[in-house]
Parts: sequence; C-alpha cells; structure tokens
Amino acid sequence: MTKRITFKPYDLTVEVPDGENLLRAAVQAGVHINASCGGEGVCGKCRILLESGELESTRSGLLSDEEWDLGYRQACQSWILSDLVVRIPPESLLDRKTLTRRRGGIGLKPSPIDLAAMKSEGLYNPAFQKRFVQLPPASLEDNACDLTRLENGLERQHGLENLAHDFFMLRKLSRVIRQENFQVTATLDFAQRRSRNPRVVNLEPGDTRERHYALAVDIGTTTVWVQLLDLARGVILGNGADYNAQMSYGDDVITRIVFSQKELGLQKLQRSVVATINQVMHRLLKKHKLDPSEISHLTVAANTTMTHLFYSIDPKFIRLTPYTPAACHLPPVRARDLGLELPDHVFIYCVSSVSSYVGGDIVAGVLASGIYKDPKLTLYIDIGTNGEIVIGNQHWLACAACSAGPAFEGGGIKFGMRATAGAVEEVSINPQTLEPMILTIDMVKPKGICGSGLINLMAALMEAGVIAPNGKFRDDLNTPRIRQGDSGWEYVLAPAPDTQSGEDIVLSEADIDNLMRAKGAMFAGYLTLLENVGLRLQDLEQVILAGAFGQFINIDNAIAIGLLPDLDREKYLFVGNGSLQGATLLAFSRDLLEEERRVADMMTSFELSETPGYMNQYIAALFLPHTQMEYFPSVTERLRAGRE
Amino acid sequence: MTKRITFKPYDLTVEVPDGENLLRAAVQAGVHINASCGGEGVCGKCRILLESGELESTRSGLLSDEEWDLGYRQACQSWILSDLVVRIPPESLLDRKTLTRRRGGIGLKPSPIDLAAMKSEGLYNPAFQKRFVQLPPASLEDNACDLTRLENGLERQHGLENLAHDFFMLRKLSRVIRQENFQVTATLDFAQRRSRNPRVVNLEPGDTRERHYALAVDIGTTTVWVQLLDLARGVILGNGADYNAQMSYGDDVITRIVFSQKELGLQKLQRSVVATINQVMHRLLKKHKLDPSEISHLTVAANTTMTHLFYSIDPKFIRLTPYTPAACHLPPVRARDLGLELPDHVFIYCVSSVSSYVGGDIVAGVLASGIYKDPKLTLYIDIGTNGEIVIGNQHWLACAACSAGPAFEGGGIKFGMRATAGAVEEVSINPQTLEPMILTIDMVKPKGICGSGLINLMAALMEAGVIAPNGKFRDDLNTPRIRQGDSGWEYVLAPAPDTQSGEDIVLSEADIDNLMRAKGAMFAGYLTLLENVGLRLQDLEQVILAGAFGQFINIDNAIAIGLLPDLDREKYLFVGNGSLQGATLLAFSRDLLEEERRVADMMTSFELSETPGYMNQYIAALFLPHTQMEYFPSVTERLRAGRE
Repeated sequence: MTKRITFKPYDLTVEVPDGENLLRAAVQAGVHINASCGGEGVCGKCRILLESGELESTRSGLLSDEEWDLGYRQACQSWILSDLVVRIPPESLLDRKTLTRRRGGIGLKPSPIDLAAMKSEGLYNPAFQKRFVQLPPASLEDNACDLTRLENGLERQHGLENLAHDFFMLRKLSRVIRQENFQVTATLDFAQRRSRNPRVVNLEPGDTRERHYALAVDIGTTTVWVQLLDLARGVILGNGADYNAQMSYGDDVITRIVFSQKELGLQKLQRSVVATINQVMHRLLKKHKLDPSEISHLTVAANTTMTHLFYSIDPKFIRLTPYTPAACHLPPVRARDLGLELPDHVFIYCVSSVSSYVGGDIVAGVLASGIYKDPKLTLYIDIGTNGEIVIGNQHWLACAACSAGPAFEGGGIKFGMRATAGAVEEVSINPQTLEPMILTIDMVKPKGICGSGLINLMAALMEAGVIAPNGKFRDDLNTPRIRQGDSGWEYVLAPAPDTQSGEDIVLSEADIDNLMRAKGAMFAGYLTLLENVGLRLQDLEQVILAGAFGQFINIDNAIAIGLLPDLDREKYLFVGNGSLQGATLLAFSRDLLEEERRVADMMTSFELSETPGYMNQYIAALFLPHTQMEYFPSVTERLRAGRE
Repeated sequence: MTKRITFKPYDLTVEVPDGENLLRAAVQAGVHINASCGGEGVCGKCRILLESGELESTRSGLLSDEEWDLGYRQACQSWILSDLVVRIPPESLLDRKTLTRRRGGIGLKPSPIDLAAMKSEGLYNPAFQKRFVQLPPASLEDNACDLTRLENGLERQHGLENLAHDFFMLRKLSRVIRQENFQVTATLDFAQRRSRNPRVVNLEPGDTRERHYALAVDIGTTTVWVQLLDLARGVILGNGADYNAQMSYGDDVITRIVFSQKELGLQKLQRSVVATINQVMHRLLKKHKLDPSEISHLTVAANTTMTHLFYSIDPKFIRLTPYTPAACHLPPVRARDLGLELPDHVFIYCVSSVSSYVGGDIVAGVLASGIYKDPKLTLYIDIGTNGEIVIGNQHWLACAACSAGPAFEGGGIKFGMRATAGAVEEVSINPQTLEPMILTIDMVKPKGICGSGLINLMAALMEAGVIAPNGKFRDDLNTPRIRQGDSGWEYVLAPAPDTQSGEDIVLSEADIDNLMRAKGAMFAGYLTLLENVGLRLQDLEQVILAGAFGQFINIDNAIAIGLLPDLDREKYLFVGNGSLQGATLLAFSRDLLEEERRVADMMTSFELSETPGYMNQYIAALFLPHTQMEYFPSVTERLRAGRE
C-alpha cells in the first residue's frame, strides 16, 4: 500500500509506502527541509504544516500548543497514515533549483538470484544430491558387506558406478542401513567430476530427500554473511550476519596480515572468524529448526586475505612485493578440520581467487552477475575496504584492485564511521543559507558520516559551491558553517548540541583530500584497464555495483564527485552482495562449481601500480569530478544548472 | 660356518651352524635323547659322550668328576665349537625306528619379497613418488600464486597435469617454497588413478628425493608389526612388533567385538591398537634416525575385525548372522584422523577384506604370494587365532574361514601357551619307554606347550602308539606317564620337579579332542572348497603356509595328525607374515595398490557352516589322521614302519 504525498509550495507529489517517515519521504522526493539532528527530533528545525490527511506524530516540547493546533509537526517525528498535503514553512523554504536533483541509486534494488530462470535453463543442478535406495536385506545367501550392498543399490537403482566414499560415512553405515529396514538416503557429491568420481558423503535412514540443506558464506573483512539454502527446493531460506570477530585485531587486511605474523597471530585470527561463522550459522539453523547434520556442504567466498586466514594459510607474502598469495585455488576441506561445528561429512568448497588483491569475493560476484558469459562490455565495481574492478565480457576479463583505502567505509575521515545507527546518510545543502538537511541511519542524533553519506555530502557541497573543483573550500563565502578548524578549513555539518558526542561534526579539507584520492584511484583504475584493452568509457554497456555499499550509494552523487563514470543511469545495475550470491550459486549449480576456477583463471589481473599510465590517470582524477570535464557531461550540465 | 656332527651309534651325520646347541642339533637330526626339563639343564637326562672334537659345556652338579673326565656332557648345556663325534649312551639309546623321521618344516625359510625381481619386472613403482622442481622465483612480472607456480613447474619439468592438492600441504607452501630459493621436492600420490588425479601431498625445501619413506603395518589380533620402507631405494629398513594392546580386552576377535558393544568400548579398542602402532613406529623411526615427517604414507593389512576396530567402525554385525562387515573396502584416511602420531599429509591405505572372516590380512597374503597371478593350483593356509584358507590360481580364488578356534595358539588346551620362553616346542617319545625328549623355547624349564609343540606332541604320541586314531589313550600301556587325571586320561610330559610352576605338565584327552576339532575344521575346509570347484587334494600343485605359526610348524607332524594334506613336501612353501608382506608390497607397487580391491573381489567367500557337505567332511576328519586313510598315504607308511 502506498500513499500520495504532495509537498507545497512545490506541488510535488510522490508515492511512498504506508507508514513511511515524513522526513525520509521528503528526502526521497528531493525536497529540502532543514534538519541537523539526523531525525531524532531534538533540533526542531524540520517543521512542516499538515494541510490535509493524517499523520501519526510524536509531540516534543519544541512545538507550542498553538503551533500544534495549527497543524505544525516535526517531519522527522511524523509517520504517514493517509494521502497527505504538507507545506514546507518559509523558514525551510528553498528555491526550486534543489528540486532538479532527484535521487538515483536508492532506487536500485539488488537483483536476487533468479532461481526460476536457473531451473528453466537447466542450471539448477546442485553438486550435492540425495538418492533414496531400498536395499535387499542381508541374508546368509547374500551377506556382502554393507558398503557393497549400498554400492549395488546405487548402481542398480540410479545407474551410479565407481563411487568413492567419504570415510566418516562408513562409521555409521551399519547402523543407519538397518534403522529403517535397509531403506536409506545417500548424499552424493558430484563436484569435480573431471578429476574424480562421485562420492558418497552421508547416509541417513529412510527417505530424507525432502530435507537437504547447504550453507553459503561470505567472509568479508568487516562482516560475515551466512545464507541457508534448501537444496531440495532450490530456495534461499534466510541469512544471518555479524561482524567478523577478527575486527578486534585490525580494521583492514593489511593490519590483519601484520597481526598474523605475531606469535599465535594466525591461529587467533583463524579462530575468530570461525567463531563468527559458527555463531551466525547456529543462530540461523535454530531459527529454521534445522540440525547441523542436515547440512550437506558449505560454499565460501572471501577476499584473498580472508581466505588465507580462514584456512589458516600464512598470508605473509600477500603484503610483500611481489604480492603472491600462497594459493588462489583451494581443494575441498573438511569443515571440522577448520573448526566449524558441523558434522564430519561436511566439506567446504571455496571460490578461487585471482591474485593477492582480487579475491574469491570478486570472482563470486563475476559468477553471480554472469559477466563471464555476457556479450555486453561490463564494468563490475565492488567498493569495500578496498575497491576492486573487473572489466570484460564473455570473451575476456581484466581486473584490478585500486588502493582506494577505506575512505568510503569511513576510514581516514575524522568523523567517518560505518553505516550504523547515527551515521549521516542523507545530506542536502540549502544553496542560499548553506544550511544542511541531514538524515541519519535509524534517525537518531548524528554521530558521524558513513560512506554513502560522505559521497552525498561531497556532492552537495560541490553543487552548492562550497568546495571548488580542486577540493578546497571557497574562501569567499560568508557563513559560520565554514570555518578554520584545528587541521585547516572545515564545514560544520551538525553543531555540538545536535550530536551524540556533544562535539561539532565537521568535514575538513584533509577529509576531502582522502576522499578525492580514493575516488581518483577508482576512476584511474577504470580508465587504465580500458586503455590496456584499447577501449573507452563510452564503450561500457553495463556497470554493475556490488557490495553493501553499492546498495546505498546515490548514483548521481557518486558520478558528481567522479567516483563512477558518467554514463546513462540505465546502464547501472546493483547485484547486491555479489560474493554471497556467488557462493550460493556454487551450491545451486554443479556446473558453476566446476567452472569457477576456469572463470578465475580467465580474469587477467593488473597490478595498477606497475601498469604504465596509471599514475598519470590517478593525478588527473584528483579533481572534482575530474580534470577532464568531458568525461562528465551530465555533471557539467548539473553544475551549470545549479549556477543559473 | 657349519660343523659336522656324527651321532653314534647311528653313524648319522648332520651339518649345523657353528655354536649351535647340541640338544637342538640332535632334534634337528631326528636323534632322540631323553630330556624333560626343556633344555634348562636341571633334569640331567640328556647326557652324551664326547668322542672327538670340541664342545663348550657348562658343568652342573649332575655330572660327577669321573663322568666329566670320561667326556660325559649334558647335551642341552653344550655348544658346538668344531666337527664332533658324540655317542648317545645306552640309557638314552633308542632303536633305529625313530630315526626314520626327519624334520620337515623347520627348514622352510620365509620367502622375503624379491625386490630385485620386482625392479627388473618393472613392478617396483611406488604410488607415492617424489619430484624435484626448480621454480622461477616470484617477481612483479610473474606474481602468480605459489600454488600455480608449483603446478606450472611440475607440468613443465615433469609433464604432470591436472594435479590435485592435499589441503595441509598448502598451509606450508609459501614458507617451504622460499626456504631453498624456490627449489622444492613434491611428494605425489599416484594411487587410485582410475578414480582421481595425482595429488600433491607434501612439499619439502630443496632436493629430498633421496629421503623417502613409508610404513607397512600388519595389525594382528595378537601382534602388531610395523615395517619401515625406504621408497627411494626400494629397501626394507627394518621392522618392529609388539603385542596388540587390545589383548587386555580379550584374546580373540569375538571377545573384542563383544567388548566393542560396551559403552566407550569401541573407542577404547581403537585407542589401544593405535597406541601400539604409535609406540612400535616411534621406536622404529628412532632406531633408524628418521623423523615422522619423512613418512609419505602408511599401508595396513589386518583381519576384518581388526580393520573395523582400527578405523573405529562398529564391528557389531560381523558377529551376528548373516555376518556382514560394514565395509570390506576403505577409502584412504588421514592417519591423524585415527590418532596416529604422524604429520597431516600422511594417509593410510588399507588392504580390502573379502568377508567378515576372510580379511585384508589374507588378501595381503594372496597378493604377497602372488597366487592371484599364478597358473598353479594353490592352497594358501594361514593358521592363527582362526584358520583361513584360499584355494585357486590366476583365474579364480575361493576362500573360507575355518572355525579352528585358538587351539593351535594354545587356547582351550590346559597347558597350552603362546610361543614364548618355556613353551615346549620340540618333542619326541621313546617308543619303548614312552619317555619324552622335550626342548623349550629359550631352553628354560617348561611352562606349557605352544602350538607347534602340540602338533609335535600329538604326532609323537600317535606314532609311539600312545594315542589311538580316535584320539583316546590306549588303555593297555603300562607306564606311569599315562594316568587318570582330574578330567580323564592324560600323558605326563614333564613331571612337577622339572617344570616352572612345580606342577606336572600334561596333555589330556580333552586337549586332544580340541586339537582334533581344530585340525578337522581345517581339513574339512580344504576338501569342501575343492569339492565345490570339482577338484581333489591331488590336484593341488602348491601349498603356501603363512603366519608366524607356519614358520615353526613341522610339516611331517602336521601332516601326521591330519592338519595339512599329505602331499609332496616339495609343494610346501612358507611365505612368512603374508599380511605384512602384502602391506609392504602395496607401498612398493602402485599397480598392486590399485589391484588389491580387484583381487579381493575375485576371492569368492564360502560360509563353510552353510556349505552342503562341510559337516560330513568335518566329522570324517575327527580322526588321526583321518577316517579315510587314503588321503594320507605317507602317514600310513610311517605308522606301518613304526609298528614293524
């Protein structure tokens, strides 16, 4: 159910879901309402006048009885119950120009795995499958061993020959086979058929074909995701996530590698991430009332360092020139051997990496997004702690890691923070007053600024003319919001009384510098990879954004600051957590599980720092949006419109 | 160096090794000298007169000065230093008849594995092999992962493609590869090539091709043998043995299976045998100054129950009708997963079993003796706690377990004991006086009678006419040696003063009954298997004896009592510990490792108790040597000669 909201005096109407917050609806409509407490309701600036319809509003002491009776409400404290007409009062009134900018990006919904399509194309074919067999009971005339009995049954009833067997299955074979009078369900591993025979990994009494589950895991440097899969039905049952417990040993891969070199360091890191997976997994299984014994296997995707640490493989040389991982391809490993609290029969299959800095998470994303079999020239971007990019199509794939650093995760930015409660995510700036409207995650008092918020803030400041193309604050603006701080010029986004910490939240020139370097590294990466294959930005037919970051990014703003190429917005797609999706696909498709190494091998890795031309491209990109404005026609247009 | 000994008054000359004990030399020559203390020197009965040559003799108070000066010596206290002439004094003088019987069997030397022949026939080809590679060092131009570097090196320098990798190797890959400047030696597993690709299991810095070892293990119900193999040279370096620590939970497989059903029973049994293997292995490695990390793999042969217990697989149904093992064929298992103190990369390969009572030890013996590829019709016999037999040739193999029980290991026999110090092993009976000459292991006072001793005693009593063909004592003999004991008639082999325990050592009719049942079960087994394939005893071209028991058995005596078929003695071969030899061969030959399951599958197992005709054969065999004397022409001849 949606409701129609008309904002006066603009006569701008938008449809929003029933029960939506009114300030959030304004943000989505591109309507500026002053707001500096992030939506907690304490600054009292976001007042609107309800002209018709019904709102459920919380009343604070910031509105007098008279105002309340007149219909004044705090937008951030109001939830929409019906179609409405609301008027922005003069103190928040803004000229039309800010209305020209509508949100892009937020509208991008992650594309889930299209299981129906997979099934209709015959791609739904899990490597692990169950087979029910009714065996003839043992007798004195036929007292072959239980294993031979099982083998004969699987051969006669399912045409399966030359089977291999997981040893631990044999330990329960005799008991299980007799439990339901020689009726059993065998779980078979058909993976890696080029290098080995199908393998019986588990055996259950009776017919359990309807209960067959797997887990897909994405081990991020920051967050670990676990997805529960129903292999019998080809359905994702749910997922869970938690911070990677390795976080307490360092925020990024480099500090983790450094820590791994200390005594017991590798062991501690390995145990931490395994503890996280165990915890999330148990929670998920409990929620779905499943027993770990019903899991047939586990697929994992992670960046190269996370993969090494998870498997307890020393990552030392990832960090040292010439940056070689120990192994980009890992054989199946018994889950228990890594400390996962799963039964003996569960093996882990891991997505291959390409190089030290283009890992299995990216290969998984390439698998999930299907670039490797797409005729369209595609740019795949995953911005996390680092920024990885892939360019190519069904015939070739080039990839690189850009040392974007963690700026877009809030790292190296004074008030940068992760996208949690209190992080400023939405920002607009009144071009006259230079006053901001901010919205925080969970609409509580601001605590800092998250990655997407930084992009939105940069774009807004740039568009309002507060920062110049070189990233410096204009010195001719007369506003208390811009001031000389401890470390140079800064813009005050939220004054102390409105913030959680009680100190001003600012964005400094040093912060802007860091963000410029990060976005410059990414953009120089796109151009360098394209140049190396003789192509240009305009040749790109598709841009796929991956990672949690991609979900919240405002495409227009990201283009405005020069982080993303200025292409038709229709070319942009959001794949969601490509790494997790790729891991899930491996569990759903034996062909993909067998093909993943081929795809990884197909991806030519470029060490950008060693690639001629990259440094020049990087320096040219240290500008807003870029020294070469011809790369950004729509931004040029937007800035011109802003100045008119 | 051998010496020639002439025994007067027989003028019988034999050659014996320098330093041999004189009583033992007499036994080997078939010369009877009274002796009832087993060789310890306390009964003083084995006096001889030295006529020429030199003996080193210990003098006890049992010889007077005069006797000593005349040249009287105690045979058991004398060791041969030169060629000799000795005279048996009248009190020990015996008529010629006992001389007609020469020892058979003892002369059978175990046939060791003929490694030279294996090598010349191209059969020496271990499944685990080392390859040295010199890899190009990593550089910025070539910074592929270490695993790819290794794979490329093995492909370019050794033509090895599509390799699999053991996960644990990857954990040390980066370190090892850099230790000797990218020179490494990889250990490859070429086993099971029909079902999977070669696998890199270990990696060592530098060139270690010269140091490559494996272990072969025979897990007997009583004894565990471990053999250390040098795979680089194709040499057996040595072996060690110890009692299977499971002995404290029961002597035979049935009591162990019963124990395994108790709480933690299976676990205790598994840990016991693993503890024994660890202990023997460490001792052996230490002796040869080897580190466990230099072992590439381990091969095991054992009977079906021992295999189940070693792998911690419930053996419950082996004991219950219809006697089904859980698995006759086991996949390779990581040694560490079973508790063996060996590094991660070591896998165990186990010889397949045929059925609950024809196990991998017998299959290993078939492999070691080569019956499965021999055109000669062969009978293979392994008498241990049970008796297993195989009949066949290169085209077919039939096998069965005979419930011979542990009689030949001393079980169920009042004074039966294992072949340790004090066990009577050699016996002859003076047909006139019915006085015995006995020799014990280590020549100490007798404590009991071991298996080969029982056979010799039975044959001697039978030949001396003390026991009748129905296994009963003759009641017309006037000698204090035969008397009515607590449980019926018995023969006193050693009187109390001459024994360790101070009680008489006897053989009773009940004991004889047990031995008759045991030998009858074996003989009925040969006939039943032969009958089932339409063949007769005379068709046998070869008889192979396996097991420690086979080494000490006196073939003539075993034939005399009807335990072995009465064939040309030249047809008898002794293979030694066939189980251990088979395990060793698997480590030496990839072809055998791959063929062992085929050989096991080729062996048709007969459940004798379910096979028509077996019971009749069994009852017919409860006679000395047999109710049908035509099966035993040479025994008939010998008995007739004895009576003349």
